[in-house]
Amino acid sequence: MNWTVYLSGEIHTDWRQQIMRGAEAYGLPIVFTSAVTDHEASDAAGDVLGKENDNFWRDHKSSKVNAIRTQALLEKCDIAVIRFGEKYKQWNAAFDAGYCAALGKPYITLHAEDIIHPLKEVDGSAMAWARTPEQVVEILKYITSKQ
Amino acid sequence: MNWTVYLSGEIHTDWRQQIMRGAEAYGLPIVFTSAVTDHEASDAAGDVLGKENDNFWRDHKSSKVNAIRTQALLEKCDIAVIRFGEKYKQWNAAFDAGYCAALGKPYITLHAEDIIHPLKEVDGSAMAWARTPEQVVEILKYITSKQ
Amino acid sequence: MNWTVYLSGEIHTDWRQQIMRGAEAYGLPIVFTSAVTDHEASDAAGDVLGKENDNFWRDHKSSKVNAIRTQALLEKCDIAVIRFGEKYKQWNAAFDAGYCAALGKPYITLHAEDIIHPLKEVDGSAMAWARTPEQVVEILKYITSKQ
Amino acid sequence: MNWTVYLSGEIHTDWRQQIMRGAEAYGLPIVFTSAVTDHEASDAAGDVLGKENDNFWRDHKSSKVNAIRTQALLEKCDIAVIRFGEKYKQWNAAFDAGYCAALGKPYITLHAEDIIHPLKEVDGSAMAWARTPEQVVEILKYITSKQ
Amino acid sequence: MNWTVYLSGEIHTDWRQQIMRGAEAYGLPIVFTSAVTDHEASDAAGDVLGKENDNFWRDHKSSKVNAIRTQALLEKCDIAVIRFGEKYKQWNAAFDAGYCAALGKPYITLHAEDIIHPLKEVDGSAMAWARTPEQVVEILKYITSKQ
Amino acid sequence: MNWTVYLSGEIHTDWRQQIMRGAEAYGLPIVFTSAVTDHEASDAAGDVLGKENDNFWRDHKSSKVNAIRTQALLEKCDIAVIRFGEKYKQWNAAFDAGYCAALGKPYITLHAEDIIHPLKEVDGSAMAWARTPEQVVEILKYITSKQ
Amino acid sequence: MNWTVYLSGEIHTDWRQQIMRGAEAYGLPIVFTSAVTDHEASDAAGDVLGKENDNFWRDHKSSKVNAIRTQALLEKCDIAVIRFGEKYKQWNAAFDAGYCAALGKPYITLHAEDIIHPLKEVDGSAMAWARTPEQVVEILKYITSKQ
Amino acid sequence: MNWTVYLSGEIHTDWRQQIMRGAEAYGLPIVFTSAVTDHEASDAAGDVLGKENDNFWRDHKSSKVNAIRTQALLEKCDIAVIRFGEKYKQWNAAFDAGYCAALGKPYITLHAEDIIHPLKEVDGSAMAWARTPEQVVEILKYITSKQ
Repeated sequence: MNWTVYLSGEIHTDWRQQIMRGAEAYGLPIVFTSAVTDHEASDAAGDVLGKENDNFWRDHKSSKVNAIRTQALLEKCDIAVIRFGEKYKQWNAAFDAGYCAALGKPYITLHAEDIIHPLKEVDGSAMAWARTPEQVVEILKYITSKQ
Repeated sequence: MNWTVYLSGEIHTDWRQQIMRGAEAYGLPIVFTSAVTDHEASDAAGDVLGKENDNFWRDHKSSKVNAIRTQALLEKCDIAVIRFGEKYKQWNAAFDAGYCAALGKPYITLHAEDIIHPLKEVDGSAMAWARTPEQVVEILKYITSKQ
Repeated sequence: MNWTVYLSGEIHTDWRQQIMRGAEAYGLPIVFTSAVTDHEASDAAGDVLGKENDNFWRDHKSSKVNAIRTQALLEKCDIAVIRFGEKYKQWNAAFDAGYCAALGKPYITLHAEDIIHPLKEVDGSAMAWARTPEQVVEILKYITSKQ
Repeated sequence: MNWTVYLSGEIHTDWRQQIMRGAEAYGLPIVFTSAVTDHEASDAAGDVLGKENDNFWRDHKSSKVNAIRTQALLEKCDIAVIRFGEKYKQWNAAFDAGYCAALGKPYITLHAEDIIHPLKEVDGSAMAWARTPEQVVEILKYITSKQ
Repeated sequence: MNWTVYLSGEIHTDWRQQIMRGAEAYGLPIVFTSAVTDHEASDAAGDVLGKENDNFWRDHKSSKVNAIRTQALLEKCDIAVIRFGEKYKQWNAAFDAGYCAALGKPYITLHAEDIIHPLKEVDGSAMAWARTPEQVVEILKYITSKQ
Repeated sequence: MNWTVYLSGEIHTDWRQQIMRGAEAYGLPIVFTSAVTDHEASDAAGDVLGKENDNFWRDHKSSKVNAIRTQALLEKCDIAVIRFGEKYKQWNAAFDAGYCAALGKPYITLHAEDIIHPLKEVDGSAMAWARTPEQVVEILKYITSKQ
Repeated sequence: MNWTVYLSGEIHTDWRQQIMRGAEAYGLPIVFTSAVTDHEASDAAGDVLGKENDNFWRDHKSSKVNAIRTQALLEKCDIAVIRFGEKYKQWNAAFDAGYCAALGKPYITLHAEDIIHPLKEVDGSAMAWARTPEQVVEILKYITSKQ
Repeated sequence: MNWTVYLSGEIHTDWRQQIMRGAEAYGLPIVFTSAVTDHEASDAAGDVLGKENDNFWRDHKSSKVNAIRTQALLEKCDIAVIRFGEKYKQWNAAFDAGYCAALGKPYITLHAEDIIHPLKEVDGSAMAWARTPEQVVEILKYITSKQ
């Protein structure tokens, strides 16, 4: 059986690549999906539909175009990995976690120890909390290929 | 018809009271619900089940006890109002927004203009964005009692 | 048992009042609900959240505020009556019909004979087609109170 | 990942072909589906089951045969594009939009600027509004193939 | 807690009355619902919408008007009792059983021993098979009021 | 796109073969599924689990083993064709129709004109009524392959 | 708001009464529901439908009659408390836990420390684990009445 | 059509291998899935995420990691076979049965005659009870390949 794993959250470090390389090294039967991770392209996703003068509506248009992709991929995935990094608000990652929780879709959080407390609701509905991409790879290996 | 409105998010200002007083002044047919907003009680929600030495598990137990309440109330509400204030990570508020989005439950965000950009995914799935509790009251008045 | 009947569509004649008066005359156990039928108020539903220069966004804000109400009421109703009149595009009425069809919510259409052909998809998923409010009242009487 | 895009609405111009050719030129991983767009064949879809003297029932039979196809394809698609042209009532297009909205299926509207106001409810639940088939192609390219 | 019990099927004997009287004698907290059991009125349910020359369409209109009521009541009930008598095809009773089965709604069949074999699929998805209205009353008493 | 069509009901004539041969002759992209149509094997489906002295329980065991197959295939199909012949009670066919109706699964009935009246509820929820296998083949051709 | 709490599992000690008395002492807005806890009556639930010679079928009939009640009450409850005592297999309690988990219904387990390991899957999907009825009462008090 | 069969429960005898070999010998179109059946690996599933001093939390972490796999596989399977052996509590097997029941997923139990009574609720919602792996193979053969 093939598994689909959605990688959500922080886009400033190479955690996605680490997980994908690790899964590839083990030959795991996983297809990885993700939002568009090119920050500028993501912010401009709706610009082709016409320029907006008001920042709220520019963001609104782009976030809806992005949501066509992200919500479809979240609904099709078997597991989501949701990463919180050190910077920025990352409300979209927490939003994805809530979205998964309501769908009954299992997710694994990936974050450092110092943000345990503000993430307690997000971790409370998660199936696992990992500190490193390597841990995520080991968990995915166990889930998808252990006999 | 009676409406149930869930008030999610920031607990350090009196925005909940402002909305409830405003709705009461208009005599709107609304029952308001909420998570436990006493911060210390909320953090200690699981302590009665036994002390934990490890902070992660203390938070985990409490967040699950709280989730029994919050997820039941979210699922029973007709509308959620989700407030983002000036301080803290507020990932639980974004989590609630994602939870509502996946359930198809309409929500209204309440936040200042300077955090439009980091909230674009949360606002993108919202039915309205308000800047003040008064605006929320006016919207609720229109929805629940306009002929 | 009480029934809830949602009245959707045309707002320029008094068909809603005719149905409600007819139901009242028979003493039917029905609560009627509806979108806001004051055209100007409906178009201005989002104005309290801030003025928009662009008509598209003004309409967008108002239609979302209205949708908080209409989609909640559609989901709570037992039966919808969907009226198509002689004027205007009335795409919102057809939208409500599609919304009901996808939810498996039974609806009755109310329209004149000369628009049978363009309404064939809408009528095809309807449970009944009525030509007059009196017919709707008779059907509702049968459904809700015949032994 | 392959995506399925349902093309709904107006059948008098070649907007479907424009979108399909554009997607093909970019090599997008999209399968396009649609109602039967041959107007006469569509109106006659039920005739094989026996002739009807009454136009209402002829339309009724045909619209139900068509609905076997359209509702199955709508439920299987990842995205719908819903086109409103210059002529006719096009209630079936608005019906499809409402159907998508209730299923939580994302849709993009495609229409000219002069019908913004009568389409405000339909656009209010849409994920994007495009004015040209080229814009739709660009949005589909971004969603289905942007890294 | 109050229970709602839908009584489906045969309309030529007084089995409904026997069950209702039995439940009343025990003071059970049950509301009983049912299709319209006046055969002629049921066949004529759609006549108010206009006469039909073709029997198929007359039946079609009436059965859809009746379905507004029956499907709403089936979806609201806690338990259905489905009665097969000695005469007629009673396909509507078997249809209701299949409808309940797909909804996960528990139903009790009520029929004589000599039709066990043709009812084996209907009984196979039932929660109980009773031979007499008295047995149904005893089962309902146990379910709704036994401590 | 491939379509799956479930053939339910009467097993004493070759209507299934007629439909399958017709679809094959047209090269339609359809996979046909069905209950086990070998009457004796079907009645004995549960015998391998141990003999029963009581006919009710023998039927019960077999009907549940058969239901593992039929309900899975009904839920996976895109369209069901439900056939009522001249003999026997055929309650299982009406049961399947009700099962489809509750799932929102489109079905086509196939039966002669003389049983229109007792089948009115079953036909009322159907998407089409055909009199001959040839008509079914034509409808399937239109739905699955008409451009 | 009123809450409904289903009490599942062990029937040989008075843990249900302890919880109900505790909730009453605090005046909590809770309605408690439960399976029939009279062991003999529960085993005999189906006997009124006719005696069985084979124990498997006697149990089968009774367990289905009981399931009409238990599954309806589980689906209507807001929270389940699932108790594992010292004796017997108690597979029905674990079955109820799995049933709740699949419905997304929150449950609290109540059991001693020495059976943590065999209950790890059941506890893994629980929202809380309590060792005493008093702890359950405190958790219910917090959830249903803390401001 | 291919079928997916999930094998749940006891891990101390080779019943899974017997069923898989039997299915292979018949060439049945079945993919078998299962939880991780290596007891030690299963208990240690969460260890890679960090050691725990408290046995409850070690079990909790591991059971959640295992649940990512088991609940995904249960939701994807067409049929589950749930085995109860002679030893241990096997609450996870009963949990899986309840999980299947709530999802409407058909399952077959596999257990000896002497535990009929404590398994009556689990068997009451099952589609079949088998005593031997050979019986399961015969049932699977009938369901998946009988014409």
